[in-house]
Amino acid sequence: MIDPAQLTADLIRCRTVTPDEGGALQLLADLLTAAGFECHRIDRNGTPNLFARWGARGARTFGFNGHTDVVPPGDPASWTHPPFSGAEIDGWIWGRGATDMKSGVAAFVAAAVDFVTQTPPDGAIVLTITGDEEGPGKDGTRALLDWMDQHSERMDVCIVGEPSNPDRMGEMIKIGRRGSMTLEIEAQGKQGHAAYPHRARNPLHALTRLLYDLTAVPLDKGTEHFDPSGLQITTIDCGNPASNVIPEKARATINIRFNDAHTSDMLDRMIRDRAEAVATATGVTFQIRTDVSGESFLTRPGPFVELVAGVVRAETGLDPVLSTSGGTSDARFVKDHCPVLEFGLVGHFMHQVDERVPADQVRQLARIYRRILEQYFA
Amino acid sequence: MIDPAQLTADLIRCRTVTPDEGGALQLLADLLTAAGFECHRIDRNGTPNLFARWGARGARTFGFNGHTDVVPPGDPASWTHPPFSGAEIDGWIWGRGATDMKSGVAAFVAAAVDFVTQTPPDGAIVLTITGDEEGPGKDGTRALLDWMDQHSERMDVCIVGEPSNPDRMGEMIKIGRRGSMTLEIEAQGKQGHAAYPHRARNPLHALTRLLYDLTAVPLDKGTEHFDPSGLQITTIDCGNPASNVIPEKARATINIRFNDAHTSDMLDRMIRDRAEAVATATGVTFQIRTDVSGESFLTRPGPFVELVAGVVRAETGLDPVLSTSGGTSDARFVKDHCPVLEFGLVGHFMHQVDERVPADQVRQLARIYRRILEQYFA
Repeated sequence: MIDPAQLTADLIRCRTVTPDEGGALQLLADLLTAAGFECHRIDRNGTPNLFARWGARGARTFGFNGHTDVVPPGDPASWTHPPFSGAEIDGWIWGRGATDMKSGVAAFVAAAVDFVTQTPPDGAIVLTITGDEEGPGKDGTRALLDWMDQHSERMDVCIVGEPSNPDRMGEMIKIGRRGSMTLEIEAQGKQGHAAYPHRARNPLHALTRLLYDLTAVPLDKGTEHFDPSGLQITTIDCGNPASNVIPEKARATINIRFNDAHTSDMLDRMIRDRAEAVATATGVTFQIRTDVSGESFLTRPGPFVELVAGVVRAETGLDPVLSTSGGTSDARFVKDHCPVLEFGLVGHFMHQVDERVPADQVRQLARIYRRILEQYFA
Repeated sequence: MIDPAQLTADLIRCRTVTPDEGGALQLLADLLTAAGFECHRIDRNGTPNLFARWGARGARTFGFNGHTDVVPPGDPASWTHPPFSGAEIDGWIWGRGATDMKSGVAAFVAAAVDFVTQTPPDGAIVLTITGDEEGPGKDGTRALLDWMDQHSERMDVCIVGEPSNPDRMGEMIKIGRRGSMTLEIEAQGKQGHAAYPHRARNPLHALTRLLYDLTAVPLDKGTEHFDPSGLQITTIDCGNPASNVIPEKARATINIRFNDAHTSDMLDRMIRDRAEAVATATGVTFQIRTDVSGESFLTRPGPFVELVAGVVRAETGLDPVLSTSGGTSDARFVKDHCPVLEFGLVGHFMHQVDERVPADQVRQLARIYRRILEQYFA
C-alpha cells in the first residue's frame, strides 16, 4: 500500500519547475504500471504529460486531472527547509508543490492503486497528469485531451485535484470557474503641443473615455452560481516626459473575469464596439489584442456533485460550499470533455516560501478520493 | 547709427545657449552706455540679466523686455550655415536666435539709441534683457522686476519683443496670453489579485474616473479676448507588467492652458475637490503636485494698444489682429508690473535647424519700434 504522504515527499524531491519533468511522471508511471495501469507519455512541444488507464478503454470511466510541475522556489536561502527536500518535520511535509499540488496527485494515485488492488471495479480509472499547468498550459492538459479524443479514450466524470479549500479541509468544492481574458489596447492619436490641442488628437483622452465607459457600470450582478463578473484595468502607460506635449500613443491592459452570463467572444465584441464609438467621436484609433485564458464553466449540481459532497461531509464533518470562486485551473479544459469539479487540500502556502502541508491532511484526502471511487463504482 | 541687422549678426556670434551670457549682454551694455543709458547687470543665481535706463528714474517710462539666450542648436552639422555664424547670405541672417529673439533685441536697441540721440524725449526708456527666457526662467525677467521694485525703477508700459507674427510682418499683436499650469497626480490604491478586486482598490479605476471627469466637459467656451481654456492629459503611467495583478499606484500629468475666466488657484481647488470626491467614493487617495508656469494676462485694448496697432498699420499696411493665442512668454511676469503687449518678427524657424531672418525684416521692426517711441513721447 502506498503512503500518500511519503509519495508527496518523493515527488517534492523531483525538481519539476515548469517545464522540467524532473523524474516525477516517471515515478508515477512506475507505480501505476506496477498496479496494472496502462501508461503513455503524451509529450507535446517539449511539455511532459502522463496518461494512465486502469480497466478497459471505453468502459464507464472515472477521471482525475492534476499536475506535477511547480512554480519556481525563489531564493532557496529564504526557505526554512530546502524547497526540494520533502522533509517531514513535526507532521508537516515541506517543499515546493507540497500543496500545489504534488500532494493531490499523490493522494489520488495512492487511493486509485489501493482501490483497484483491493476491490477491482467494473469500469475504468483514467489519470491525466501534466507537467505544465503553472506555465503557458498550451501543451499540457490540452495535449492529453487532444490525444484522448484521437485514441477514443474517455472520462465520464473528472475530479481536478487542485487545492480547493480556503481554510479547512472539506469546506469547499469548486463546481465551476469564471473565465479569464486579457485585452491589450493601444490608442493612436496625433502628437502636438499642449497649447494647441486642436492640431493634435490626444490618445489619452480617448483611452480614458473608453476605460471609464468600461468600468463605470458593472458587467453584471452575478448569476445563480457565480459572483459578478469583474473588469480590472491592470496598467496604463504612455511614458511621455514632456508636460507641454500631447503624446502620440498610449497603452492599457484590462483583465476580465467573467461568469456564465458572457462568453469571451461577446465581451471582445462589446469592447471593440465601444472602442469604435470612441474612435468615431475622437479620431483616435484603437488596436486591440485579445488573449483568452479560458471560458467560464459550470458543472451544475446533480448526482456527481452530490456524490462528492456526500463523501466530503462524511469524512470531514463539514458541509462543503459549492463554489465558483477563484482564478483559473485546468478544469477550464476538462469541462469541454466531461463534467468536472475540483476538490483537494487547503490552499494555504500555495506559491509561497515555506510551502508545506500536514501529512495527515494528505492521508485524509486519499481516504476521501478512495471513498469517492468506491461510491462511484458501487 | 546702429544697423539692427548687423547687431543681430553680432549677437548671434555670441554663444548664449541658456544660461551662458556669451558676451551678448556686455555687447549691448557697451552700446547702450555709449548712448547715455545707465546699465546694471542684475545677475541672480548665475543667471545673467541686464537693466538699462535712459532718462531720469521716476520719469514717464517706456519699457522693453527681451532675451539674448537661445535654445541649443542641436547637431551643427545639420545646419546649412554654422548656427553661431551670423552669416548674411542673399539678404538672410543665419543662426540660432535669428528670430527668437536676438533680432528683436537688436531692433529695439537700434531704435532706442537712434531715438534718444536724435530726439531726446521728455521721459525715460528702460530695457530689461534676460539671459534666461528659454530655461527655467526663475532668475531672469523675474529677477529684473524684483530688482526694479527694490530700486524704485518703473515702466509705465512695456513691449516684449518676441516674434508675434505667424506668417506676415504686422498681422498680429499679442495683448495677452493664457496661463499655464501642470499638475502631477499620483493615485494610491491597494494592490491585489485581478480575480479578487474586492480585496484591492484599483488606483487606475479612480484615476480614470477623475481624468474622465476633468476632460468630459470643456472648462469654458472662451471669453471676450480668449480662446477656450484647454486641459490635456499628457501622460498616464503605471508600469505594471502582470495582467493578473491590480497595481498599487498610478500617475498622471495634466497641463492646463487657461484664459481669464480662471486663476490657477481656482483650477487647483476645483481639481482637488473632484479628486477628493473620487477618493471618498473609491478609497483611493490622491497626491497632487501643482506647478504654475504663469497666470493668464490681458492688456485690454485702449490707448497703448491703439498706439502700437496704428504704427504697425502705418508701417506694414496690415491691420494687426489683437491675439491672446500661443504658449507663454516673459510677458507673464511683466504684466504684474505694467500693461504689456508683444510685438516682434515673424516666428518662422523658431527653435528649428537653419533658423534665419530677412535682414530687411529686422530693419522694418526697428522702424516700427522707433515710431512707437516717437508717438509714445509725442
